[in-house]
Amino acid sequence: MSAMNAQPDLNVSALTEAATAARGALRALAAAPVSVRNAALMAASDALMANQASILEANARDLASANGTSAFQDRLRLDTARLAAMAQGLRDVAALPDPLARILAEWTRPNGLVIRRIAQPIGVIGMIYESRPNVGADAAALAIKSGNAILLRGGSESFYSAQAIHAAMRTGLRTAGLPLACVQIAPTTDRGFVAAMLAASGLIDLIIPRGGKSLVERVQREARVPVLAHAEGLNHTYIHSAADFTMARNILANAKMRRTGVCGATETLLLDTAIAPALLPDLIADLSALGCDFRADDAARLILPNLPAASPADFHTEWLDAILNIKIVANIDEALAHIATHGSEHTDAIVTNDQHAADYFLQNIASSVGLWNASTQFCDGGEFGFGGEIGIATGRIQARGPVGLEQLTSFRYVIHGTGQVRP
Amino acid sequence: MSAMNAQPDLNVSALTEAATAARGALRALAAAPVSVRNAALMAASDALMANQASILEANARDLASANGTSAFQDRLRLDTARLAAMAQGLRDVAALPDPLARILAEWTRPNGLVIRRIAQPIGVIGMIYESRPNVGADAAALAIKSGNAILLRGGSESFYSAQAIHAAMRTGLRTAGLPLACVQIAPTTDRGFVAAMLAASGLIDLIIPRGGKSLVERVQREARVPVLAHAEGLNHTYIHSAADFTMARNILANAKMRRTGVCGATETLLLDTAIAPALLPDLIADLSALGCDFRADDAARLILPNLPAASPADFHTEWLDAILNIKIVANIDEALAHIATHGSEHTDAIVTNDQHAADYFLQNIASSVGLWNASTQFCDGGEFGFGGEIGIATGRIQARGPVGLEQLTSFRYVIHGTGQVRP
Repeated sequence: MSAMNAQPDLNVSALTEAATAARGALRALAAAPVSVRNAALMAASDALMANQASILEANARDLASANGTSAFQDRLRLDTARLAAMAQGLRDVAALPDPLARILAEWTRPNGLVIRRIAQPIGVIGMIYESRPNVGADAAALAIKSGNAILLRGGSESFYSAQAIHAAMRTGLRTAGLPLACVQIAPTTDRGFVAAMLAASGLIDLIIPRGGKSLVERVQREARVPVLAHAEGLNHTYIHSAADFTMARNILANAKMRRTGVCGATETLLLDTAIAPALLPDLIADLSALGCDFRADDAARLILPNLPAASPADFHTEWLDAILNIKIVANIDEALAHIATHGSEHTDAIVTNDQHAADYFLQNIASSVGLWNASTQFCDGGEFGFGGEIGIATGRIQARGPVGLEQLTSFRYVIHGTGQVRP
Repeated sequence: MSAMNAQPDLNVSALTEAATAARGALRALAAAPVSVRNAALMAASDALMANQASILEANARDLASANGTSAFQDRLRLDTARLAAMAQGLRDVAALPDPLARILAEWTRPNGLVIRRIAQPIGVIGMIYESRPNVGADAAALAIKSGNAILLRGGSESFYSAQAIHAAMRTGLRTAGLPLACVQIAPTTDRGFVAAMLAASGLIDLIIPRGGKSLVERVQREARVPVLAHAEGLNHTYIHSAADFTMARNILANAKMRRTGVCGATETLLLDTAIAPALLPDLIADLSALGCDFRADDAARLILPNLPAASPADFHTEWLDAILNIKIVANIDEALAHIATHGSEHTDAIVTNDQHAADYFLQNIASSVGLWNASTQFCDGGEFGFGGEIGIATGRIQARGPVGLEQLTSFRYVIHGTGQVRP
């Protein structure tokens, strides 16, 4: 046996051990009353605050060996304010309604059978994430609340931070009397461990990757386990000819520039040709004042020749930066066709005062989230009222859009009879 | 390039062509009013009846080359009665409510945004099935009604039957003005085509296998696409000490013997020790009279020494035949532990007049369908009132239990604003 084969085997056995322990904890977790699950979150929150010093020390150790841009370092960095926000996040999840206390449907058959579709946990969730250490705490909190066990695999750059946060989650579980195996952390930073997770059909029920496009695409390509994720948010704001100009200016500025690095940010403006000459200069002035740069098609450059020219590739590019693609369209159908070709089924918006146009647009986009007269940056679990999200999904199975507690549940049927047999 | 590589490439290109055409048809199908989708089903039903002769001729061609048991030949055989039932099945699906006309949730945020979660089709479904030709018609009908395109891959044994049925479905689509690509059939019986389907992440959104355990397990093991399926129905009927004896006898006889070959059939009786001496002889007499054989544990054989002894493997065996495993248990917890170890999370029932015992049982089983005082054979889309099912699922993602029209839909969010931007 070669040395090259030894490491993957170690990863598979480590994954199998962790995931099996997580599965073993499922029944106790799912059977625990919501008061116990909430108690674990509150105690974990307390432990995060009580252990600030050791968590920040662990984070400093990660930062010391971190290479990368200042944005990368910033994502990785913890401070007392961020720790307090993380602790508050756990309390917020504890305050949410119990997603397992839901009867999703209930009906009575002509033969008297009463059929109920009731919520239940999915099982073991594998969470693969990069850089931001708070993702581990948020994900663990949502998992515990929804009765799911979770196996966390953070990036190697945040290894010590993740371990320190995980220790606080364990304290919470221990205080509440729940099995510690409910929340597990990868024991290694070896990349082969991720491969083992992706192959763990039957041990892991759902994989959720949070991170850059290359990570998510690798997970989507290789996983033999269902995946909830989005690879990118190539989002459009379409300003229709019947738009209110002031509203359009406010929405576009917010959709592009409120935060440019979030997946709900608009990357491309689609603007009806009928109003382009009158509106485009103001849109550009607003965004320029906020520090935005542009990639414009020929029609836009006929109106404002100083705009930089867009290449075809630009319209396929998720900038996550202060750059806006601009395309002038003849009408709503051209806008829809552009979105169908270039979009990522994440989040797209129309600005118009014409309800028929809005309905037509919203009916004909495949986007996970479609908005009428609102900023694309509303694509967020908190803004949906979910209290938290474990990610955004653009697939077609189980969930789309922000994935909150309800989307982390499955269901089963419970049938009450009085002796019925089938004819 | 070797000849061995040539065949898989042909399969991949054939699959890619079919699935791409199906994807291209999605928007037109999803946008079609339910009246148009229903018209396609009615016209397909008419075409099945109008083309009886050619369908039966195709079926005769399949039967002529079919080897296998008489049960296998029977599953494959079509006759005028079965064709009429198939045609009626399409009309039944047409009569069901539109699964796309559902607002799954609707709420208003403090900032005035109105958020709706609305049903939408999943996309392209890959259906892999064996022997029963009607499965292709049923699956195509459910797909059309729910706005999904479908790619059918029947067994090689039913190739000509499947082609003839597919022709009728095409007639239905053509009559209603829907794209013919909505319902596709595998152009080859090559097994490599199945491998191409299972690898078609991004082209096929969901795979549904219907067939024997080895087919389903292969699909679950190899698929890079989400799968809805059950590999087996290792179902239990647990007769609790507080059961009504007459009800227990009726339910067990039905659960085991109504039809032994269906996935909802009971395979194992769990019987509380307190009532075993009084009840077991009657249960055995009832089932023996129906032609059932037994595999009993030692405790049962202390009561009835003539019962054949069970091996440990028997309790892991889905007989799909007139054979019942019997185990005497000390109490409900031993019954639950046995189900957790030996069950397949398909369908399990408790018979008792003690509501607390029933609640405890139903809360602590992971089964897709749990029943109280009813036969396990009620695990069926028709019996649930779904009007039809494309299969039974025991996984944790998207759906569990009978998969009907609603479970063949996904959702997306549509948000109505009045100019809101995110702070």
